[in-house]
Amino acid sequence: MESGGGVVDHLADERSKAQFDVDEMKVVWAGSRHDFELSDRISRLVASDPAFRKDNRVMMSRKELFKNTLRKAAYAWKRIIELRLTEEEANKLRFYVDEPAFTDLHWGMFVPAIKGQGTDEQQQKWLPLAHRMQIIGCYAQTELGHGSNVQGLETTATFDPQTDEFVIHSPTLTSSKWWPGGLGKVSTHAVVYARLITDGQEHGVHGFIVQLRSLDDHMPLPGITIGDIGMKFGNGAYNTMDNGVLRFDNVRIPRDQMLMRVLQVTKEGKCVQSNVPRQLIYGTMVYVRQTIVADASRALSRAVCIATRYSAVRRQFGSQNGLETQVIDYKTQQSRLFPLIASAYAFRFVGEWLKWLYTDVTQRLQANDFSTLPEAHACTAGLKSLTTSVTADAIEECRKLCGGHGYLCSSGLPELFAVYVPACTYEGDNVVLLLQVARFLMKTVAQLPSGKKPVGTTAYLGLVEHLMQYRCGVQNAEDWLNPSVILEVFEARAARMCVNRAQKLGSFPNPDEGFAELSAFLAEAAVAHCQLIVVSKFIEKLQQDIPGGEGVKQQLRNLCNIYALNLINRHLGDFLSTGAISAKQASLANDQLRSLFSQVRPNAIALVDAFNYTDHYLGSILGCYDGNVYPKLYEEAWKDPLNDSVVPDGYQEYIRPMLKQQLRNARL
Amino acid sequence: MESGGGVVDHLADERSKAQFDVDEMKVVWAGSRHDFELSDRISRLVASDPAFRKDNRVMMSRKELFKNTLRKAAYAWKRIIELRLTEEEANKLRFYVDEPAFTDLHWGMFVPAIKGQGTDEQQQKWLPLAHRMQIIGCYAQTELGHGSNVQGLETTATFDPQTDEFVIHSPTLTSSKWWPGGLGKVSTHAVVYARLITDGQEHGVHGFIVQLRSLDDHMPLPGITIGDIGMKFGNGAYNTMDNGVLRFDNVRIPRDQMLMRVLQVTKEGKCVQSNVPRQLIYGTMVYVRQTIVADASRALSRAVCIATRYSAVRRQFGSQNGLETQVIDYKTQQSRLFPLIASAYAFRFVGEWLKWLYTDVTQRLQANDFSTLPEAHACTAGLKSLTTSVTADAIEECRKLCGGHGYLCSSGLPELFAVYVPACTYEGDNVVLLLQVARFLMKTVAQLPSGKKPVGTTAYLGLVEHLMQYRCGVQNAEDWLNPSVILEVFEARAARMCVNRAQKLGSFPNPDEGFAELSAFLAEAAVAHCQLIVVSKFIEKLQQDIPGGEGVKQQLRNLCNIYALNLINRHLGDFLSTGAISAKQASLANDQLRSLFSQVRPNAIALVDAFNYTDHYLGSILGCYDGNVYPKLYEEAWKDPLNDSVVPDGYQEYIRPMLKQQLRNARL
Repeated sequence: MESGGGVVDHLADERSKAQFDVDEMKVVWAGSRHDFELSDRISRLVASDPAFRKDNRVMMSRKELFKNTLRKAAYAWKRIIELRLTEEEANKLRFYVDEPAFTDLHWGMFVPAIKGQGTDEQQQKWLPLAHRMQIIGCYAQTELGHGSNVQGLETTATFDPQTDEFVIHSPTLTSSKWWPGGLGKVSTHAVVYARLITDGQEHGVHGFIVQLRSLDDHMPLPGITIGDIGMKFGNGAYNTMDNGVLRFDNVRIPRDQMLMRVLQVTKEGKCVQSNVPRQLIYGTMVYVRQTIVADASRALSRAVCIATRYSAVRRQFGSQNGLETQVIDYKTQQSRLFPLIASAYAFRFVGEWLKWLYTDVTQRLQANDFSTLPEAHACTAGLKSLTTSVTADAIEECRKLCGGHGYLCSSGLPELFAVYVPACTYEGDNVVLLLQVARFLMKTVAQLPSGKKPVGTTAYLGLVEHLMQYRCGVQNAEDWLNPSVILEVFEARAARMCVNRAQKLGSFPNPDEGFAELSAFLAEAAVAHCQLIVVSKFIEKLQQDIPGGEGVKQQLRNLCNIYALNLINRHLGDFLSTGAISAKQASLANDQLRSLFSQVRPNAIALVDAFNYTDHYLGSILGCYDGNVYPKLYEEAWKDPLNDSVVPDGYQEYIRPMLKQQLRNARL
Repeated sequence: MESGGGVVDHLADERSKAQFDVDEMKVVWAGSRHDFELSDRISRLVASDPAFRKDNRVMMSRKELFKNTLRKAAYAWKRIIELRLTEEEANKLRFYVDEPAFTDLHWGMFVPAIKGQGTDEQQQKWLPLAHRMQIIGCYAQTELGHGSNVQGLETTATFDPQTDEFVIHSPTLTSSKWWPGGLGKVSTHAVVYARLITDGQEHGVHGFIVQLRSLDDHMPLPGITIGDIGMKFGNGAYNTMDNGVLRFDNVRIPRDQMLMRVLQVTKEGKCVQSNVPRQLIYGTMVYVRQTIVADASRALSRAVCIATRYSAVRRQFGSQNGLETQVIDYKTQQSRLFPLIASAYAFRFVGEWLKWLYTDVTQRLQANDFSTLPEAHACTAGLKSLTTSVTADAIEECRKLCGGHGYLCSSGLPELFAVYVPACTYEGDNVVLLLQVARFLMKTVAQLPSGKKPVGTTAYLGLVEHLMQYRCGVQNAEDWLNPSVILEVFEARAARMCVNRAQKLGSFPNPDEGFAELSAFLAEAAVAHCQLIVVSKFIEKLQQDIPGGEGVKQQLRNLCNIYALNLINRHLGDFLSTGAISAKQASLANDQLRSLFSQVRPNAIALVDAFNYTDHYLGSILGCYDGNVYPKLYEEAWKDPLNDSVVPDGYQEYIRPMLKQQLRNARL
């Protein structure tokens, strides 16, 4: 997407090399023509509005930064109202503003929590207020001493039948709510998770709507201590957000502020299970994790777009026609960069499929069919873990691929990394999630003898006998271009790793101890399983009707093959130790991979242009559309506050006395 | 190292479990009793001086941060003079101040460049000025468009015999000097690298001493444009440093400011090679890279110390005596953390050996013996690449091992990461360096038939016939504890990878094209070679006399085995595809690894205590010596500037109008 009219495009040569229609690929990437047009329109709207400028973000102090975010959030909301944007458009607008803010939590966690866990009456009462932003809410779950283990939360909600109220209390320092975004300085309300206690009995952890601040003067209500938890990783990044700490000193709320869709507490303090299935909560988890996978492909594609464009601009060593060689022409660069382009597309398509899965799960839940739920839950947990871990590492890899200049904030990559990495921890620590997947896989394998058919993404385990005997037939490098070969190799590897782990587990007298002892080993099987899912969904995508004809399709075929063959290369130990392939076949896979890199090379710039990101959204001088990198870097440098004066503040006190040998008497 | 008296040690239980004498291990880690005492004394000196406080660093704006660094540098220099510190002590002091500053470049690059490349007269003129800091210097090599390829630099130094001067000039935008630390705002002088031109002829790139700023008022001299290049990755981190941009508009310097130890330019403009061997420059490279390896072990050990202590404090899930399980007891945590403890020790010992190598190389150079130079050069290049890449990734892994709280600046890990990662790029991009190693290895293999004996760390390639036929005899897990088995397995893997690559290269008609095409594949062989060096030096260390008796030695044995077996696990594809081990043997290696983790577990805290880092140096609440993490995190949070007021700045303008539905009319 061009940044302006009349500018020389330094990457025009590169763009002319493309062997496919980039406009059609934009539609494929976006998912549909509707989605493409929506994103295109809203991203330009944001990019063209100076109020949404973000290039000055890294130089701001914490207070300036935070106030600036408040301004942007208010302005965005004003524009949403003025332009009468739909909910879909409003979400896109917030997305392209591209700055973590309290509104993320209000719309992304507070509103959905009330929708998912509130009764109809509660929804009628609270949602209109939230939808108009007459109240601002956050999601207060994690505590200073408690993260992954939700059942270990310490905050209590004790029912007092005398007053028909819950008493919310923080009994220890470690029970302080800690991390919730939007809590520290902005939210007027929170959904607070606490241990429900009635009549001296504990009834597990539940959500409660608690007002935190006065709607008149924004002061915390009596019994409530709130603050910001301080600086976080990176320049800008999440420092625009008021992640908060919150302590309750016996704060009373009316009984009807417990979210009671699943469990109700009566006036007498009795707990009554409603007829709403508890499994509904898994539907929400599938939804949230699906959005995280979609975010992964966006963050990864953004980093890859920057690194790819800059790799075509940057020249170093060698010499052709007096110019040095473009670094994108080095095989070492290609072998790191192109698999990441492929991963960006792979994650995009598996994210698309997860959207379908969520719809499917929801429909089944409504029909009281819970049969696919454990599989869907394991699958989304695994894909969340896989895609976020890969993306975090990939952003840093892209930064390194940009050499020294990637270290400048103006490359956009440091902030992208710092903003992204929490995704590996929130909504389920990635290692904890892999162990959930492993547990499900082990259970699935254990149930095979009983004839229970594995469903969905684990269906291949139903063919385990075939897969244990499978022999890969690859005899030359071209054989690796056959999708069914790739699929079977990945299935054989994953199935054999699962069976092998299950056997090893069987040698432990106590299964739980065995699981604990082998956990790192089990996590490897979970990764193999998740990689198989991504590969298989990419292959399924290729079998669908794709706009843009053979040109587009050939690019996607190449990327799919690169994604798969690169994984074989990276996880060669798995493939060889399970006998899924031979060392000779691995070597052929490598030969094929290099040949694929050569085929991608002329299309590389167009493949990242297809993401259709504005220069505003990319936020990177190295990745700017027109490739005019060096003059822009030079210009940008002078904007640093240190350049406000030629002689720096501190010269008189600290530098001059040193040079003049007068330090001894200086007061420092 | 304790932070204060009378405080409860929350990790006392952990410390009592240790099966070795931690004080003796401190000496082993430091290298000698002298080094231990020096570090211990100076680190306490810095830690106890409030002028060196650094916990407020991440909250400062760029200007405040920079001025604060100027203050610390001046104060440190003042103390060095007052306390009459030796050069060794002064270096330690600057190290423990732990803040990138212009002094790093002055002492670490400017002074050594004059020493290494200046004639005796030049040294006599410039070194006393530099030693007293009457001038402050930096090292101006890289340019906006030129990094790794030094021969591609564009800045020119044209000799004018009429005035007996060089004219230093920046002919293009991309020739602007870019990145030199200390350049942007502080340095009065620089060693500038430029293409030497005399009589219309080019004579390669050489160093020139150029005065940049007036010693009276610090203003840039005529023809010189200088500034800071702007914000870099991370909070604090390298933003304390004035990395700079510099342009020359025909700046004239006297002829005797070209550094002429190797090449002299006469009054007539003739180039005369001196009798000083050009290879001297490699000696300097060996020295610089040896210090980088030493830095890697320090940065890695620091991150690992934080993650290990916090893993013993943090509890999650499970339940023993009503408490949740310490996360350090989870095998998934151990399998990520303990190999990093092992790597920290491994890098420490290979760094120690590199110090010896530098001495050896220097002595040989003085005796005009250049025979070991190419091998020493390849070895240090490879170890620089390996240790810095691993350390950068490991710091981020340690951050993730600390869960959500690792994302807070107060964990110390974000800044440690941001400060560390440039090491992967400076002094040779890590991938470029691996290719240098690969080139050397391929040359070595190619020369084997001629009977040329490989020396030093490549000596094993002389036994290539034996290694090609080697069969690993491991039959049970205990066999993996035998150092000679480990060594031979690593030798077999590396040798076979080299031979295999050499054969593949041979199939290309043009060797250079073959090298380019296979470069990613060749880099893998270089990594295998470097890992072998680290393993072999660790094993050599175990064969030396080590203080602390069997207890200390057993710990080091365990760590050495963990280091090696973990590598086998991580690079299993290499070991299996070369047939160095079998799948069954790999599985036994994994069993042994888990058993080693259990043996390290009770010693883990003591093993990181042995680094003897003060709380000041660690700069991490999560890693504090006494383990009193939660109260300190809670206290620290309130220091954020956002907590200066209960109601945040911006409430009236941006939050209240939103809540009160008055946005439409608000001016935003």
